Amino acid sequence: MAAFIHDDFLLTSEPARRLYHGFAAGEPILDFHNHLSPRDVADNRRFKDLYELWLAGDHYKWRAMRANGVSETLITGDATPYEKFMAWAQTVPRTLRNPLYHWTHLELLRFFGYEELLDERSAPQIWNQINERLRTEPLTTWSILEKFNVRAVCTTDDPADVLAAHQAFQNVSAPWRMYPTFRPDAALAVDRADLFNAWLRKLEQAGNCSIATLDELLAAISKRHADFHQLGCRLSDHGLPHCHAEDCDETKAAAIFHKAICKQPMSQDEANQYRSFMMLYFGRLDAVAGWTKQLHLGALRNNNSRLYSSQGADCGADSIGDRGQATQLGRYLDRLDREGSLPKMIVYNLNPSDTYSIATMLGNFQMGPIASKLQLGSGWWFLDQAEGMRWQLNALSQTGLLAHFVGMVTDSRSFMSFPRHEYFRRVLCELVGSDVKSGLLPDDESLLGPWIANICYGNARRYLKLDGSST
Amino acid sequence: MAAFIHDDFLLTSEPARRLYHGFAAGEPILDFHNHLSPRDVADNRRFKDLYELWLAGDHYKWRAMRANGVSETLITGDATPYEKFMAWAQTVPRTLRNPLYHWTHLELLRFFGYEELLDERSAPQIWNQINERLRTEPLTTWSILEKFNVRAVCTTDDPADVLAAHQAFQNVSAPWRMYPTFRPDAALAVDRADLFNAWLRKLEQAGNCSIATLDELLAAISKRHADFHQLGCRLSDHGLPHCHAEDCDETKAAAIFHKAICKQPMSQDEANQYRSFMMLYFGRLDAVAGWTKQLHLGALRNNNSRLYSSQGADCGADSIGDRGQATQLGRYLDRLDREGSLPKMIVYNLNPSDTYSIATMLGNFQMGPIASKLQLGSGWWFLDQAEGMRWQLNALSQTGLLAHFVGMVTDSRSFMSFPRHEYFRRVLCELVGSDVKSGLLPDDESLLGPWIANICYGNARRYLKLDGSST
Amino acid sequence: MAAFIHDDFLLTSEPARRLYHGFAAGEPILDFHNHLSPRDVADNRRFKDLYELWLAGDHYKWRAMRANGVSETLITGDATPYEKFMAWAQTVPRTLRNPLYHWTHLELLRFFGYEELLDERSAPQIWNQINERLRTEPLTTWSILEKFNVRAVCTTDDPADVLAAHQAFQNVSAPWRMYPTFRPDAALAVDRADLFNAWLRKLEQAGNCSIATLDELLAAISKRHADFHQLGCRLSDHGLPHCHAEDCDETKAAAIFHKAICKQPMSQDEANQYRSFMMLYFGRLDAVAGWTKQLHLGALRNNNSRLYSSQGADCGADSIGDRGQATQLGRYLDRLDREGSLPKMIVYNLNPSDTYSIATMLGNFQMGPIASKLQLGSGWWFLDQAEGMRWQLNALSQTGLLAHFVGMVTDSRSFMSFPRHEYFRRVLCELVGSDVKSGLLPDDESLLGPWIANICYGNARRYLKLDGSST
Repeated sequence: MAAFIHDDFLLTSEPARRLYHGFAAGEPILDFHNHLSPRDVADNRRFKDLYELWLAGDHYKWRAMRANGVSETLITGDATPYEKFMAWAQTVPRTLRNPLYHWTHLELLRFFGYEELLDERSAPQIWNQINERLRTEPLTTWSILEKFNVRAVCTTDDPADVLAAHQAFQNVSAPWRMYPTFRPDAALAVDRADLFNAWLRKLEQAGNCSIATLDELLAAISKRHADFHQLGCRLSDHGLPHCHAEDCDETKAAAIFHKAICKQPMSQDEANQYRSFMMLYFGRLDAVAGWTKQLHLGALRNNNSRLYSSQGADCGADSIGDRGQATQLGRYLDRLDREGSLPKMIVYNLNPSDTYSIATMLGNFQMGPIASKLQLGSGWWFLDQAEGMRWQLNALSQTGLLAHFVGMVTDSRSFMSFPRHEYFRRVLCELVGSDVKSGLLPDDESLLGPWIANICYGNARRYLKLDGSST
Repeated sequence: MAAFIHDDFLLTSEPARRLYHGFAAGEPILDFHNHLSPRDVADNRRFKDLYELWLAGDHYKWRAMRANGVSETLITGDATPYEKFMAWAQTVPRTLRNPLYHWTHLELLRFFGYEELLDERSAPQIWNQINERLRTEPLTTWSILEKFNVRAVCTTDDPADVLAAHQAFQNVSAPWRMYPTFRPDAALAVDRADLFNAWLRKLEQAGNCSIATLDELLAAISKRHADFHQLGCRLSDHGLPHCHAEDCDETKAAAIFHKAICKQPMSQDEANQYRSFMMLYFGRLDAVAGWTKQLHLGALRNNNSRLYSSQGADCGADSIGDRGQATQLGRYLDRLDREGSLPKMIVYNLNPSDTYSIATMLGNFQMGPIASKLQLGSGWWFLDQAEGMRWQLNALSQTGLLAHFVGMVTDSRSFMSFPRHEYFRRVLCELVGSDVKSGLLPDDESLLGPWIANICYGNARRYLKLDGSST
Repeated sequence: MAAFIHDDFLLTSEPARRLYHGFAAGEPILDFHNHLSPRDVADNRRFKDLYELWLAGDHYKWRAMRANGVSETLITGDATPYEKFMAWAQTVPRTLRNPLYHWTHLELLRFFGYEELLDERSAPQIWNQINERLRTEPLTTWSILEKFNVRAVCTTDDPADVLAAHQAFQNVSAPWRMYPTFRPDAALAVDRADLFNAWLRKLEQAGNCSIATLDELLAAISKRHADFHQLGCRLSDHGLPHCHAEDCDETKAAAIFHKAICKQPMSQDEANQYRSFMMLYFGRLDAVAGWTKQLHLGALRNNNSRLYSSQGADCGADSIGDRGQATQLGRYLDRLDREGSLPKMIVYNLNPSDTYSIATMLGNFQMGPIASKLQLGSGWWFLDQAEGMRWQLNALSQTGLLAHFVGMVTDSRSFMSFPRHEYFRRVLCELVGSDVKSGLLPDDESLLGPWIANICYGNARRYLKLDGSST
C-alpha cells in the first residue's frame, strides 16, 4: 500500500495540486492565535518523550479516548506516559473519519518522517524510536518553529500575567517572533467573586497599582494594554458564550463592580450589564491602539460537573451552544461603530448553524480603508476539520470576500500542531481546484495563485501589522 | 484561455447539459417577484450609462465594495459615475467565489456580448464601449424584457401607491405583461407613529376615503386589494422578521390602532398583537381572491445606525436573523387553515439553518386540489447563489415535491438581473444531471425533461394564474 | 433502459462497491427501534392486499399525496383501497428526488422482484399481480423477517400495555426475536388530565396495583420496567420536544401529580418540573438495569388542528422544531452523571441544525468502559434519507467515533420498510468509498471492512446486549 499521506494528500484535481504546490506550500506561517506556553518558547524547551510533546494537555485526544471506552486512569489519571500512549495508539484506528486520524499521521510524518499507520501493534516501536530521537536530536521548540517556517506566534495571555517569558524573549535573535495576546476573560467574571477578587489582586501586582473602584480597574487594564503593546501585542481575544450588548452606563457598572468586590450576590442580568460596559471599553482600547480584536463565540463550557470538579476547566467537557449570535453581535458592533470605535475584528464561530448569520452581520459593518476589516475567523475547535473548513470558506466566499481572508490559526496548546496550516492549505486548494475543474473559477494561475498565497500568509501579515511580520 | 462563461457553464455532466439545453434554456421567464420600477417599465426607459443601468441602487455591490475597503464616497457618495464604476471594477477580481463574480460576467456577456474578465485594466474600455452602445442601440427596458423572453414581471407595490405606471401600462401592447404585487408592510408599522400616520394619509388618497378607525383601515385595504386585482395583481408579499400569530381580537386591535393614530406609546407585545390581527385579515383577503401570498421571513434590517442615519433603509446593512421561524409560522398557517382561509403561499427563508424546519412545517398544511399549495420559495437574498440554491432544492426535494416547485425570481431592482434565471436553471440542471450520472434518478428524458421545464416556467404559470401567463 | 435499482445502486466508486458487497450486504439486521405491531408479529399476519401491507398508516406517503394535491378522501378517507393505491401511484413520479421515490422502487424490487417504475400506467397491473401473490404465497410477517435476515425487532410499547403479544411470542421458535421497548411518554402528559388519568387506570390494570400518589406511580412504573425486562426489553424510548431538566424535588413533583389527578389546572412550568423529576427517575431505572435509553428530540407535533381533530395524532402533521436542544440535554445528562446514574443513551435529533451541538454535547459525557456509551442516533424521520444520513454520519465522524456507531433502525410502522437498512448501508459505503477514492481514508479492506460490518450489525449487538443477538 502506498503511503497514506503523500505529496498530493487531499488534492484530487490537477488545478488543486498546481495551486497547492505552486502557491500555498511555500508560504510562511503566521500563527496569530494559539495557546502555546510562552515559557516553553522562551526556554527553547526540549521534550522528554512523545507523551510530553504530543499527548499531555490535548483534550481533543482525551475526548476520543473517552468515546473509545478508555478508562480515565489512562487518559488524565495515574497511568504512566507509556500506558497512556498505548491507550491513545489503540484509539487511533477507531478515529477513522475524525480529524484526529489525519492530524495524527500528518504530525508523525512531518515531525519524524514516520509513514506507517499508528495502532496498537506499531505503537511500541514508535514510542521507542521517537523518544530516542527526542533525546538525541535537537527537537526543541525553536527548531520546531524554524522547521515549519513560522514567522510569528501569538500566545494567549491574561492582563494580570506579568509576561516574564515574553520579556525574556525580547532579546532573543530568531527568524520568528513571539507576541502576547491580550485576553481579559477574567475581567468579566464578576459573578464569581472569589475568582474575580483573586484576579484583581494579581492584576494589581502586574500593574503595580491598587484596584478598589471600577475607575481603578479601567486604569489598570489600560496600563496593561499599553504594556502588552510594548511587547509587540497587536491582538486581543475574548471567549464568550455570546456577545454582551446590554445598556449599562458607568455608574451602573461601578455599582455592580462594587458588589463583586464586596462579594455580594448579583443577578445574571447585572453581570451581563457590567460585561457589556467592559466590552465597549475593551473595544475602544483596541480601536485606539490599532489592534485586532478576536471574538470566540458560542462555547458551552464545563458541562460535566464530575470532570470539572476533578479536573477543572479545559479537560474536554466543552461543546457547542445553540442560542443564536446575530442580534447581540450586531448590537455590539453597532455601538462601537456609532462612536467611531470599531476596531479590526476576527469573529470565530463554534456552531455551524450560525455561520451565515454571523458572516452577513459582519458584512453590515465593513468600512474602508481597511479591506475586510471584519473577518469571519477560520474553522474553530470542533469545526477545525475538513468539513468545517469548507463551511467557513464557502460561507465567507458567498457572503464576503475570500480574497481578503486572514486564514488559519492552530489555536493549539501543542507544538505538534503546526501541520494544521498545511492541512488547511490543502483543503483550501482542493476546494478552489475543484471549482476550477468545474469551470466555476477562471483557470488562470496569475489570478488564483496570489489569491491563494495571500490567504495562506500575506493577508494576515498586512491586516495584523505585527511588526516582525510586516517586513 | 477559453471564455470563462461558455455554453456549458456550470454544467459538468452530459445529462446536465442535455437537460439544460433541451428543456430549460428555451423556457420563458415569469419573474413574479422583483423590485423593478413600474415607471421605468411604463416609460420604456433608456439608461444613460452603465452606472445607471448596473450600479445605481445595487446594495449587493455596495457591500462587496465596502468589504474591499473602498471609500463610501466611491460607493454611495459624491464621486462621479465613472469613478464609482472604476471602484467596482477594481473590486470584481476580489469577488472570486462570491456570486457577484458570476453575475457580473454573465450579465456583461448576455447584455453586451462581452467575454473578457472585468478588472481595473479592462474597465475603461468597457465603460466607453458600453456607454456608446447605450446611446446608440435600443437597449430600453422593453427591449430587455423581450430579449430575455420574459412573459410577465410582478413589481412590489404599496397599497397606498396609486399605481399610475401600472395603469398607464394597461394599454400597451407587448408580448409580456407587468403586474403589481400588494405589499402592505407599512400597515404593520404601528409602533412608528410618524411613518404610520403619514402612510395612512397616503392610503386615504389612493383609496379616496378617510381612515380614522381600524374598521376604516380594513375597508381601505380591502378596496385597494380589489383595485390591485383589477390591474392583474394576483400576489401579495410581506417582509417580516418572523410570522405574527399572537392572540388578538378586533377590539384589542382597534385599541392598539387608536394608540397609533394618537401617537401614544405602545409595547412591542401590543404592536405584535395588532400585526397578528392584520396578518389574518390579509390572509383572508388573499384566500377569497385566489391570490398567492408571499412571506419573506427572517431578515434583521438596518443594523448599522451610521449608515441608516445617513442613507436610510436598503443600503446594504441588512443581514440574517437567527430566532427560529417554525412555531410562529405554524400558528399562523393553522389559524388560517382552521377557518378555511389559507391562501396559496410561498415562503422565502433567509437563514439556511431554518430551511428544513420551515419546509416541513409547510408540509403539514398541504391540501388538494392545488398541488403544493404551500411552496418553499427559491433561494433568497444571501441565499440567491449556487450553494443556497442547492440547499433550497435539496431541502424541498427531501421533504416535499420538487416536481411542483414554482421556481426562480430575480427579486432585483436592476434590469440587468434577468440572467439570474439562467443561472438558477444551470444550477438546477447540474444538480439533477449529477443525480442521473450517479444513478439516483432514472436516466429518462421523457420523465426528467418536462419536470425541469415545469420548474423553469410551467409550474409558476399554472400555480399563479396571472392572466397574461396562463395562455 | 437498464433497471433503475441494480446491484450497484448508489455505489459510484469501486471501493464503495467492494465495501458494500463484501462487508455490508451480508450482515444481519438488528432493527432495535420500530413501530411494528407486536400482534402482527405474534400472529404471523398475512396481508390481504398491497394497500394493507404498504399504504395503510404510512403518513410519509400521505404527506406526499397531500403535496401532490390529492383529495383527502383518497388519502385517509372513504375511497376504496384500489382508489387509494391509484392515487399513490399517480403521486410516485412526482416524488423524484424525495426518499419515497427510492424507497418505493427498492421495496417493490426486494419484496416482489418488480423492476419497473411505478406510475399511473403501470399501477393496475402491479396491484393485481401483487395482490394475487399475497393471496397465494407465504408473505407473512415471519417470512418477511426471515427473508431480510432480521435477528431482532424491538417494538415500541407503553408501560400500561400488558404486552400480551410479546408474551405469546415468548414460546415461538424462530431465528429472530421480538422485544418490547419501554416508552412512557404518557407518564409525562400531566397537563392533559383526562388522558393522564385514563392512562393511570390502564397502568393500574397492567401493574395490578392502585395509583393515587406519586409514590405509587413510581412503584408501578418500576414494576412494569421489571416486567418488560422479563420479556427481554433492554431499551427505553422517549419522544420529547426537548429535554426536561428543571429543578424539582419529590415533594414538588408529588404536589404537581396531585393536581393532575384532581384535574386542577397547572402551568407549563409546573408540568415541565414534574417531567424533569420523572426523566431522572426513568434514567435511574435504565442505568440500574443496564438498559439503553433512546431520546427522540425536537418534533413539533399536531400542528394542523383540522387534521388533528378529524384524524388524531400521527396523521402527517408533525414537523421539525427549532428551539435548540443542547443546554437542556446537557443539564439532563449532567444530573444523571453526577449521581452515577447515566445509562447508555442514543439521542436522535430531528433538526439538522442541531446535529453538531447535540453530537458535541454527548461527547462531554463519554466514559469507559463502554465504547461510545452516548450515541448520536441515525437520521430520523425527515432526516431518514440520503442527505440526512450523510449529515449524521459526517457530524458523528468529525466529532466522535464512527467506529462505534450502532447504526440504522427503520422506525417504521410497515413491514415493507426493512430495505431501509440496505439503503443506509449503501449510503454509508458510498460515503466511505468516496473517501477512499479521494485518499481521505487508507485503501485497506482489513481496516475498513470490519469497521463497516460493525456499523451494520456488530456494534448494535454488542452495545445493546439483547440476549437473542449477543450470541
